[in-house]
Amino acid sequence: MTSSRKLCTPNDYAEILSRYDTWLFDCDGVIWSGDDAIEGASQAIEFLRKNEKKIIFVTNNAARSRKMLKKKFDRLGFAASEDEIVSSAFAAAAYLKEVLKFPADRKVFVMGMEGIEAELDAVNIKRRGGTDPEDNKFLPANDYSSLVQENSIDPSVGAVVCGFDMNMNYGKLCKAFKYLTRDGAQGPVLAGETGGGCHFILTNDDQVVPALGELWPGSGSLATPLIASTKRDPIIVGKPHAPMLDTVKSLYNIDLSRSIFVGDNLHTDIQFAKDGNMDSLLVLTGVTKEEDCRTEGIWPSFIIQGISNIPMAEKAQSRTTAMSVQGTSAVHASL
Amino acid sequence: MTSSRKLCTPNDYAEILSRYDTWLFDCDGVIWSGDDAIEGASQAIEFLRKNEKKIIFVTNNAARSRKMLKKKFDRLGFAASEDEIVSSAFAAAAYLKEVLKFPADRKVFVMGMEGIEAELDAVNIKRRGGTDPEDNKFLPANDYSSLVQENSIDPSVGAVVCGFDMNMNYGKLCKAFKYLTRDGAQGPVLAGETGGGCHFILTNDDQVVPALGELWPGSGSLATPLIASTKRDPIIVGKPHAPMLDTVKSLYNIDLSRSIFVGDNLHTDIQFAKDGNMDSLLVLTGVTKEEDCRTEGIWPSFIIQGISNIPMAEKAQSRTTAMSVQGTSAVHASL
Repeated sequence: MTSSRKLCTPNDYAEILSRYDTWLFDCDGVIWSGDDAIEGASQAIEFLRKNEKKIIFVTNNAARSRKMLKKKFDRLGFAASEDEIVSSAFAAAAYLKEVLKFPADRKVFVMGMEGIEAELDAVNIKRRGGTDPEDNKFLPANDYSSLVQENSIDPSVGAVVCGFDMNMNYGKLCKAFKYLTRDGAQGPVLAGETGGGCHFILTNDDQVVPALGELWPGSGSLATPLIASTKRDPIIVGKPHAPMLDTVKSLYNIDLSRSIFVGDNLHTDIQFAKDGNMDSLLVLTGVTKEEDCRTEGIWPSFIIQGISNIPMAEKAQSRTTAMSVQGTSAVHASL
Repeated sequence: MTSSRKLCTPNDYAEILSRYDTWLFDCDGVIWSGDDAIEGASQAIEFLRKNEKKIIFVTNNAARSRKMLKKKFDRLGFAASEDEIVSSAFAAAAYLKEVLKFPADRKVFVMGMEGIEAELDAVNIKRRGGTDPEDNKFLPANDYSSLVQENSIDPSVGAVVCGFDMNMNYGKLCKAFKYLTRDGAQGPVLAGETGGGCHFILTNDDQVVPALGELWPGSGSLATPLIASTKRDPIIVGKPHAPMLDTVKSLYNIDLSRSIFVGDNLHTDIQFAKDGNMDSLLVLTGVTKEEDCRTEGIWPSFIIQGISNIPMAEKAQSRTTAMSVQGTSAVHASL
């Protein structure tokens, strides 16, 4: 596909409203921007609920647990329930538990924040690192002695999960490096044993992350020292990668042919929809400009200014004429 | 070249002793290993001095200044003078001063330790970041507010210099990211102005670093978040890159055709010698095994077990027969 349909008229919106039963939304740049709701976004979600659409929020944010994210939804007026939210931290825990069958007696070393910890706790996977004060301090200059002390490296660790971490530091990085490069680290992770295999999981590979209306280094960037030093490729669970889609499919009984993914990022959201054989709707309230589709060669099914336009469907002359709309324009590769 | 000569007999050693006037040495894995001198290394250096050879130590270590490194030489019995030592931190400062003509009124933001700071101070280049306590603390979770406060980002900064940093942290990374991605960041750095261009310099790109007889993530790895998030390529000054060679050439009046580089690392030391049209001598007391030459496709001119063998030259039957030695074996690509 080398073009996207730009939705303009009430009838355009009425058409997509009738075509999709399940609406999946990215969060940042779509329903909120940093700590502020996008104008008209909560009304748009409310409008879809009124029209009996199933709503699912799919975010690469791994810093917060779903419980913490739900508080943000509440605060910004979205009234989402916790089981409508899928985060990359949640997907990482689900991947360890369901796909990798991570042994109950092994531990995960967390290079990340509360979000990953809470989701591991929720599925009863033991953990180390993360927000432990022992792993959130600076080492003395040129002194590795604390890292080779007994008990510093826990042989029961069988996975390293990396996500966004405002407290990234060299000690944590060194420990993760040791787990991922020990003898047999690329082998199986077995119950009742120590050492040996160690999985390498990355919640998401966004190189930058938006906050306060600006961009900052993201979790994809923060994981690069570990990738470069260990020469290992992590399993990436977040959008646009397959584990996130598998998690969504296993959680919700949805018909992908009648589902649409709404996002602001071509490489994560729109690519995620394409890989999942879902239609996609690009909004221009986040990181992407209309002309980026051509530059990046990634074309969503539809483009709209922002989700606040969705309730426009209500003004359609006739819902039944939706499949033969007028006024639809196409954004072509020749843009 | 697809083979290296392995030196065995006293006459082999006598030959190379007579062939080279200047002997350049890497440090870690060659003369010391971590905090211990390699056995017989100080005697080998002493033997070369006695034979009136010029000695230069060339290290990618940027954590320590040359003054601090000299103390280590003294402690381990090498009696080196400060001006026999070239470090990547020293080369970075020289590159800024001599090649980039860094303006006196602009500042360098340091993502590194005392080594870089001391070398910048020595050439009167102003600096921020580094070991400043303000830049060596953890930010509150999910809170970027301190980074957007007035005075947090200094518009007089015109270069980011990255090196090994045991105190790497997200706040420092964010500041470096802002300098390197501001409007016009890839343009010229002008005196008497603020903002605009910002150089991006990396002391060295070693992905791992040895300490306490083990490997740990190195400065090349620590710089990857900044490279990934800014999408910029740094100028790398350390071995095997050209700025280090330029620094050596500008400091010492040496005849490269009568100089030999002694190192333990194929990718940094031996490649550095090749790029500089110098002969090279691989020692097996560091990170490289003999068979790695074939695997990596990098062949030094000569291979010896360790520099402690060098004084064997004294036992040669006749120094004058050195060019027609017996007992020399070649290590071939078919190894």
